[in-house]
Amino acid sequence: MHEFELINKYFSKLSSNNKSSLKLNDDVFFDKSKKLVISVDTYVEGIHFINFMYPDLVIKKIIRSSISDLICKGVKPKYYFISGSGNKKSFTKKNLEKISKSLHQEQKKFSINLCGGDTTFSKKLSFTIISLGFSDKIVFRNKAKLNDDIYVTGNLGDSFAGLRVLQKKIHLNKKLTKYFINKYFHPNLHIAITKKLLAIANTSIDISDGLTSDLEKLINNQKLSYRLHLNDIPISKNLSKLIDTKIIRKISSITHGDDYQILFTASPSKSKIISKTSKSLGIKISKIGKICTYKEKSQIINENNKKIPLKNKGYLHRF
Amino acid sequence: MHEFELINKYFSKLSSNNKSSLKLNDDVFFDKSKKLVISVDTYVEGIHFINFMYPDLVIKKIIRSSISDLICKGVKPKYYFISGSGNKKSFTKKNLEKISKSLHQEQKKFSINLCGGDTTFSKKLSFTIISLGFSDKIVFRNKAKLNDDIYVTGNLGDSFAGLRVLQKKIHLNKKLTKYFINKYFHPNLHIAITKKLLAIANTSIDISDGLTSDLEKLINNQKLSYRLHLNDIPISKNLSKLIDTKIIRKISSITHGDDYQILFTASPSKSKIISKTSKSLGIKISKIGKICTYKEKSQIINENNKKIPLKNKGYLHRF
Repeated sequence: MHEFELINKYFSKLSSNNKSSLKLNDDVFFDKSKKLVISVDTYVEGIHFINFMYPDLVIKKIIRSSISDLICKGVKPKYYFISGSGNKKSFTKKNLEKISKSLHQEQKKFSINLCGGDTTFSKKLSFTIISLGFSDKIVFRNKAKLNDDIYVTGNLGDSFAGLRVLQKKIHLNKKLTKYFINKYFHPNLHIAITKKLLAIANTSIDISDGLTSDLEKLINNQKLSYRLHLNDIPISKNLSKLIDTKIIRKISSITHGDDYQILFTASPSKSKIISKTSKSLGIKISKIGKICTYKEKSQIINENNKKIPLKNKGYLHRF
Repeated sequence: MHEFELINKYFSKLSSNNKSSLKLNDDVFFDKSKKLVISVDTYVEGIHFINFMYPDLVIKKIIRSSISDLICKGVKPKYYFISGSGNKKSFTKKNLEKISKSLHQEQKKFSINLCGGDTTFSKKLSFTIISLGFSDKIVFRNKAKLNDDIYVTGNLGDSFAGLRVLQKKIHLNKKLTKYFINKYFHPNLHIAITKKLLAIANTSIDISDGLTSDLEKLINNQKLSYRLHLNDIPISKNLSKLIDTKIIRKISSITHGDDYQILFTASPSKSKIISKTSKSLGIKISKIGKICTYKEKSQIINENNKKIPLKNKGYLHRF
C-alpha cells in the first residue's frame, strides 16, 4: 500500500470536520480565517538523502524541499521548525557548525526564521521540517480546468543526473560532475513568482516525486487527464548533452522528481500574462501540455509523435 | 553535550532576529501578532516509548505529551499534525486501525483536529507531533518572582511506576499493574485549567523530564533558586503503597518525569484564588515549595527536615 492509499484509508476521516486540512489531499494545511499555511515533511537518511557526508548540503536541500511546498501554493514562507533525530556521529561539533551555517545562509536567502524544533537521539538519522507562512489565499490542488495549459518553471532532470553521479551509476568529467551535484543539492526555488501564482494558476504543485507522478496527484480528485509533449519539457544544456550521448534517457530524468520546480495549470487566456511574468522576473516558464477530458487517457507524446508508456511514475513512499 | 547546550550553542543565534521563537528557550513558539502558539516534539522508539507493542496506547501518550506543552502555557490546542516514520511491521493494517481509532478518541476528548503530516519509510520507528493553538497571551518560562509559591497539578510519579512495571523491573499484583500501566500511557491532562493559568501563574512548564529538571529549566535564565518539600509533593494512594513498602523511592518517582502535570509559580497573594480554582474545577493543585534567592542553593527538604542530594535530575536528551 503506498502513502496516498494509506493516508486516505486511515486518516482522511480524522480530518473530515476540518476544512483547513484540505482532506489531507494537498501539500499544505490552510486555515483561511487565520490566514495560516503549514507544510510538514520528514526526511530519512537512505531514503530522502543518500547519507550525511555533506551535512551542509543535505540541510539546504531539505529546507528548500520544505519551503517549496509553500512557494508552489503562492505563499511566502516566513517561519520554519526543524526536528532532528540522530546519533553522536551525525551531530558532531563539526557537523553542527556546518548545519548552523547552512541554515543561516538559507534564512538570509529566503527571508525565513528558525522558530523551534526538537533534538532527539536515534540510531537512524532523520529530520522533520515544518514550514509556515501567512496568506489570504492559496493555489489549491484539483482545481484544473478542461483545456488548461500545463506549465513548469525552470528545468527538470538535473537533480536526477546529480543523484546518478552521487550513486556512482554514471561517471562524468569534473565540470559536469560539479554542475549536477550542485543542482541535486541546491534546487533553484523561484520565490519571486510566489505571489503572482495566485493570479495566474488554477492549480499547482511542486515537483518532488516526478513530473507525471505529481501531475497525477495534482488532479487526483478530478475527472480529467493530461497530454504532455516530451520535446517541450525544459531541460538544461548540460542534461541535453547526457541525453544526446545516451548516458541518461530524458523520460527517466524528468519522471524521477526531486526538482522542486512549480508545476501549474492556467487558462489559455493567461498565456500572454505568463510570458510577460516570465520575462519580467527572469524565470523560465515552459508550456508543456494540456489538461484533457477523462476519456482520453493521460499520455506523453515523444518526438516522433508517439505515445510513450510510462513505467516509472516517480517516487511513492511505500510501506 | 546535552540538548539545551546544543540548542544554545548552535541554534539560538539563528532565531535571534525573531522574538516569537522565545530564543528557543521555551516549550512553544508564540507569534503574538498572529496569536499563534506551536509546539514540535519528536518521539523515538526505544527512547520516548519502549516499543510499539501497544500502538493505540503509544499514540495516545505522545499526542497528550505534545498538547501538554500548549496546555501548560495557558493555550487550548486546536490542531495537530503527525509525521510517522516506520516500516511494514509498525504500520500493518491492524496497527493503522488502532492508531486511527486512538487519534479519533483523543480528538474527541481534547477537541483537536488532525491537519496533516507525513508518512515515510524508516527502519527505526519515530513520530513527530506538531500541536497548534491560538491565544492572545501565554504563560512564559523564566518569569518567576522571588517568594513565589511553587505549585503542581495532579499527582506525580505514577508514570514512573508504570514504566518500571513495563520494564519488568518491579512486579505488582494485577490491579496495581493495570493502574500504573494505565497512568503511564494516559497522562491526565487538565485542559479545564488552561485559560485560568493566564490569570494565576507567573511562569509555567509541564513535567516531562522530571520535577527538579523541569523546575531548573523553568528558571534557567533567572538568578533564582527553589526549595521543595518532599512531603508536600502529591502522589497517588497506590504509589504511596509502593513507597511505604520500599518498592520505589519517592524521590526517584517524582524526578523521573513523564507525568505531564503542570508546574507553575504564583505570587503568595494568589493562594486563595488557586484554592478556589482547584475546588471549582475539581483539579488537585498542591503547593510544593518556594522560589528563593540565588544565594540559597536549590534544595529539596525531606520528612526529617534534611536536604536531599539530587542525583537523578531527570531525563536529558544526550548526544
